Amino acid sequence: MFEIRTDLAVEEKESFPGNGGEVGGVSLREWKTASSGIKLTEVVILDEEGARVMGKPLGTYITMEAGRLRKKDEGYHREVSEELASQLHRMVSRMKEKGELDFHGPVHVLVAGLGNPSVTPDALGPGVLGNLRVNRNMKKKSEKEDTVISGIVPGVMAQTGMETAEILKGLIHETKPDLIIAIDALAARSIRRLGTTIQLTDTGIQPGSGVGNHRHSLTKESLGVPVLAIGVPTVVGAAAIVHDTISALIGTLASNMGTKGMGDFLKQLDPDEQYQLIRELLEPEFGSFYVTPPDIDQTLKQISYTISEGIHLAFYENPQEERK
Amino acid sequence: MFEIRTDLAVEEKESFPGNGGEVGGVSLREWKTASSGIKLTEVVILDEEGARVMGKPLGTYITMEAGRLRKKDEGYHREVSEELASQLHRMVSRMKEKGELDFHGPVHVLVAGLGNPSVTPDALGPGVLGNLRVNRNMKKKSEKEDTVISGIVPGVMAQTGMETAEILKGLIHETKPDLIIAIDALAARSIRRLGTTIQLTDTGIQPGSGVGNHRHSLTKESLGVPVLAIGVPTVVGAAAIVHDTISALIGTLASNMGTKGMGDFLKQLDPDEQYQLIRELLEPEFGSFYVTPPDIDQTLKQISYTISEGIHLAFYENPQEERK
Amino acid sequence: MFEIRTDLAVEEKESFPGNGGEVGGVSLREWKTASSGIKLTEVVILDEEGARVMGKPLGTYITMEAGRLRKKDEGYHREVSEELASQLHRMVSRMKEKGELDFHGPVHVLVAGLGNPSVTPDALGPGVLGNLRVNRNMKKKSEKEDTVISGIVPGVMAQTGMETAEILKGLIHETKPDLIIAIDALAARSIRRLGTTIQLTDTGIQPGSGVGNHRHSLTKESLGVPVLAIGVPTVVGAAAIVHDTISALIGTLASNMGTKGMGDFLKQLDPDEQYQLIRELLEPEFGSFYVTPPDIDQTLKQISYTISEGIHLAFYENPQEERK
Amino acid sequence: MFEIRTDLAVEEKESFPGNGGEVGGVSLREWKTASSGIKLTEVVILDEEGARVMGKPLGTYITMEAGRLRKKDEGYHREVSEELASQLHRMVSRMKEKGELDFHGPVHVLVAGLGNPSVTPDALGPGVLGNLRVNRNMKKKSEKEDTVISGIVPGVMAQTGMETAEILKGLIHETKPDLIIAIDALAARSIRRLGTTIQLTDTGIQPGSGVGNHRHSLTKESLGVPVLAIGVPTVVGAAAIVHDTISALIGTLASNMGTKGMGDFLKQLDPDEQYQLIRELLEPEFGSFYVTPPDIDQTLKQISYTISEGIHLAFYENPQEERK
Repeated sequence: MFEIRTDLAVEEKESFPGNGGEVGGVSLREWKTASSGIKLTEVVILDEEGARVMGKPLGTYITMEAGRLRKKDEGYHREVSEELASQLHRMVSRMKEKGELDFHGPVHVLVAGLGNPSVTPDALGPGVLGNLRVNRNMKKKSEKEDTVISGIVPGVMAQTGMETAEILKGLIHETKPDLIIAIDALAARSIRRLGTTIQLTDTGIQPGSGVGNHRHSLTKESLGVPVLAIGVPTVVGAAAIVHDTISALIGTLASNMGTKGMGDFLKQLDPDEQYQLIRELLEPEFGSFYVTPPDIDQTLKQISYTISEGIHLAFYENPQEERK
Repeated sequence: MFEIRTDLAVEEKESFPGNGGEVGGVSLREWKTASSGIKLTEVVILDEEGARVMGKPLGTYITMEAGRLRKKDEGYHREVSEELASQLHRMVSRMKEKGELDFHGPVHVLVAGLGNPSVTPDALGPGVLGNLRVNRNMKKKSEKEDTVISGIVPGVMAQTGMETAEILKGLIHETKPDLIIAIDALAARSIRRLGTTIQLTDTGIQPGSGVGNHRHSLTKESLGVPVLAIGVPTVVGAAAIVHDTISALIGTLASNMGTKGMGDFLKQLDPDEQYQLIRELLEPEFGSFYVTPPDIDQTLKQISYTISEGIHLAFYENPQEERK
Repeated sequence: MFEIRTDLAVEEKESFPGNGGEVGGVSLREWKTASSGIKLTEVVILDEEGARVMGKPLGTYITMEAGRLRKKDEGYHREVSEELASQLHRMVSRMKEKGELDFHGPVHVLVAGLGNPSVTPDALGPGVLGNLRVNRNMKKKSEKEDTVISGIVPGVMAQTGMETAEILKGLIHETKPDLIIAIDALAARSIRRLGTTIQLTDTGIQPGSGVGNHRHSLTKESLGVPVLAIGVPTVVGAAAIVHDTISALIGTLASNMGTKGMGDFLKQLDPDEQYQLIRELLEPEFGSFYVTPPDIDQTLKQISYTISEGIHLAFYENPQEERK
Repeated sequence: MFEIRTDLAVEEKESFPGNGGEVGGVSLREWKTASSGIKLTEVVILDEEGARVMGKPLGTYITMEAGRLRKKDEGYHREVSEELASQLHRMVSRMKEKGELDFHGPVHVLVAGLGNPSVTPDALGPGVLGNLRVNRNMKKKSEKEDTVISGIVPGVMAQTGMETAEILKGLIHETKPDLIIAIDALAARSIRRLGTTIQLTDTGIQPGSGVGNHRHSLTKESLGVPVLAIGVPTVVGAAAIVHDTISALIGTLASNMGTKGMGDFLKQLDPDEQYQLIRELLEPEFGSFYVTPPDIDQTLKQISYTISEGIHLAFYENPQEERK
């Protein structure tokens, strides 16, 4: 079945009747940061009913909407880093409370920078890893309290012949991290999300998500350790553009026309006939094409640094308690 | 005015009534290479009438359609390089005959690799320059017969603060090349063109063309020396996708409906109202967004090498005569 | 103890008394290719005595000296690729005969591109992997006869926090390759080796070797599967330069002077006092510094392609039988 | 004549008898910053006598020695940026006072990032330009007071076939900057300088300086506009290592030996015979080889950002007066 994909839970929510009204099994919370007005949305999918409606697995999805993220503005980026650190810290704390992250002493976090370094809008993960400070190689026995961080850029299957899941499973087997943080470029539905939103989720990476379309999931079920995923939408699938255009056109036509015949025709078009139309209009290989802004390289350079700093703040510096 | 842009003359031709039928002031010739079946199309815009209809300046546009160009296949790429060399050589010879390239002794060719090296689909020019062998720095006085080649990657205005035209004018003033060859990634109308077509033209680069939207032209008029342009389409403007979708939908609706009102409404929509609709549907900054295939990095790696080899064959090796 | 390091067995051999004369436990064979005159040297360390004298483990070390390897010359590079393929094929065949490579049906080769992609003379491995065609992701059940190839750029410990050996062990555990081919930039003793020599060995990678100084070995013992290593010297340790200078100076002084006192002094300097002197002359952190030619980037671009083609020829194309 | 090269005026000074004592025609001033203890040295070559002795042209050379520059430490780097901005501002103010920078209204600064982007220790200039914010393309007529900044990465002659001086002359002709700031990786004499020192000079770039050995000078004389040069030593020429080794060894031998013959021999060796020895010991192409630390990529990443920020602070932000 034809599918208009978004990797953002907040966009699934928006597409509901009444634009994000109450849905069974899904809780929603929104707030803004005091100083810079970064908008945070927390979508929690509570049960199977919510998961079915949202088309996403149970778990927590935090979205940070930061309109000035594409600009170079050190103070603002610092604030986004701090907010990301705070949310990361909160998720890790909750995992500890629930016993999902069962440990005494230091946590070992393996940060995986997914995506293809040589395709600009897919290179968020490698970009973050390029700024990440790892310390697993420098840990001494005495520094038991601090988080241990290691990192990998696994590459993409066309370059390695291996699934990302295989590579991570191997590293987990060998180096025994307690937690994976997977960084990945995402596909959004709306172009205004591109480069202005960070999503943090405790559900890992789902099959078919990301710019590069991972075939296997990266989740606690598949990898054996919890997976936090940090993503930034950098592309909109070309099919989404086509879909939106048709919806908008049909809306325009319907409201502009009084004739009964037209109204009837348009009603019966929606939604199955719409999909039929889209399939006809889409050339075969078009499904994998994507739309991206021309300045995505600069945007990703800024955000990669901001995310790496968020990870540093969450795990390397001590007094995170006041952030909760 | 809203404009659906293509940098390919062959696509302008296709969009004419009757799909490329006779147009005053434009001549068309098509043929295939014997061994690999590369399709060549030569569009010559002969007079102002042709230029007006085509929306492109007077001159010759040669398109090589090579479906397997996106694959790694050394023999095939070699053939494309040879064909490109042959066409380059033919254009240069014609320029000499016409006196446009006025010289005795060696020609000095400055190859300019346009585009942003850090944005994958815009990086054709820098990619070709990365493979190009220059020799201007090694020429001795005695080797008077050979072509002199120099090269530059001018960068993009957001990085340099200078127009590409300014940079090239400066280099022309200082190093006195006889001919510029400008390499640039192009925007096409149709996604099936992406990475499978090479366009060679003696008209230079027009304002607003290329992936990165040059504001100034690079032509004999603006630079003072003749400019050959080699381009490969790597993106389709997002607006073109929207436009095509609307056209297709309107076509479908009109043919599916018998109601008079609908037919009347749709007829009056075309073409000005269509544009109005598209403008409404397009979010403001969307105009500069583009659609590109996910494997564009591999495609450009192959084609960059193929184009650089074509230039080497055209200018560095001696017996090109039999190629004409 | 101060050590002047070389990763090339052929250089260890040269440093013996009589410049490579007979040594117990080591066999030596030299020959040239018919057309291009590439010089091949095979050093086989046969027993513990040979290993002790050579300072390298038991096994076969094949050196290809190809003076024009630093130049762009497609025919010559093709020949080097073919020779490398032939030697790779020979080593694999011998492994099969000995039962070291115990398999029926297709071999799975994991190619590891060691080194730091962002340090030019250390980037041989990532460069080769950038050209390597993998096929593990595309294999169908029916194509049982062909070699399966996967590839990884593991990065360096300062970036990942993990030893290369750990990463490879994890991948071996998960993907079960039959054989590792490790590509690495090497340190030589003599600057004339830089970029002109390829070493192929069945002994894997030893601790402390390579430009980046791996701390752990990559061998059959440490990884559990056989390891072929392909290396190209790209640096000379700065300490080697100092050592050679002192040796040469002492030689010059001794031969120029008739005074007994000097001769006696110099004799007593060698070798322990020489080392003492070198240690005094070397500033502390100097040990890790290296000497490299200014055009190493171009050299590595050429050789990376040549090695990747050698691997393709050895494993992807069929009629390798005549090469044995 | 064999020459041990340093691009640092402060090292020339150190090599004088008495380790930097009084020299006619050269003034010396040293101080430290209050908070971080960055050591600043200002060498002013006042007349032809000073220029002859120093082997460098008349002008001001400011050296900032910042031992922790190779570390990632945002506060420290910020301080270095501010100090660099302060010194840049001071030099520009002095140029205005002297009338060397003759203007009313805004200054236009063209920043040139010299060096080869694909050779790690030569990539300082391209690295700084990668972080530089240009504004020439965004200036409106009304903003008359602010500095205008443009930037270029001219590449190296082996890639362009053009001298850097030619490229800059062309750009100067076309875009009329008032001042060039040239960024370049430098060669030092002492390895402890590598990555810990920034030199700022108003004398431009001299022939034969830099890692990549520019053949032409970039000075007010050659380009027609004043040239400030910012450099960081990233390599030591291999010949310098050899020279230092020999000097140290001869010193050791001489002090350890009482025999008359030896002393006489060594005395007569110095300095011409020493050079003779070095020439014999150096293999022919060795002259262009260089020594560089293994972590130079990380060092340059840090320093590139620090220098770009220094330029931003000097020219984009307003109240620089208190910095003097």
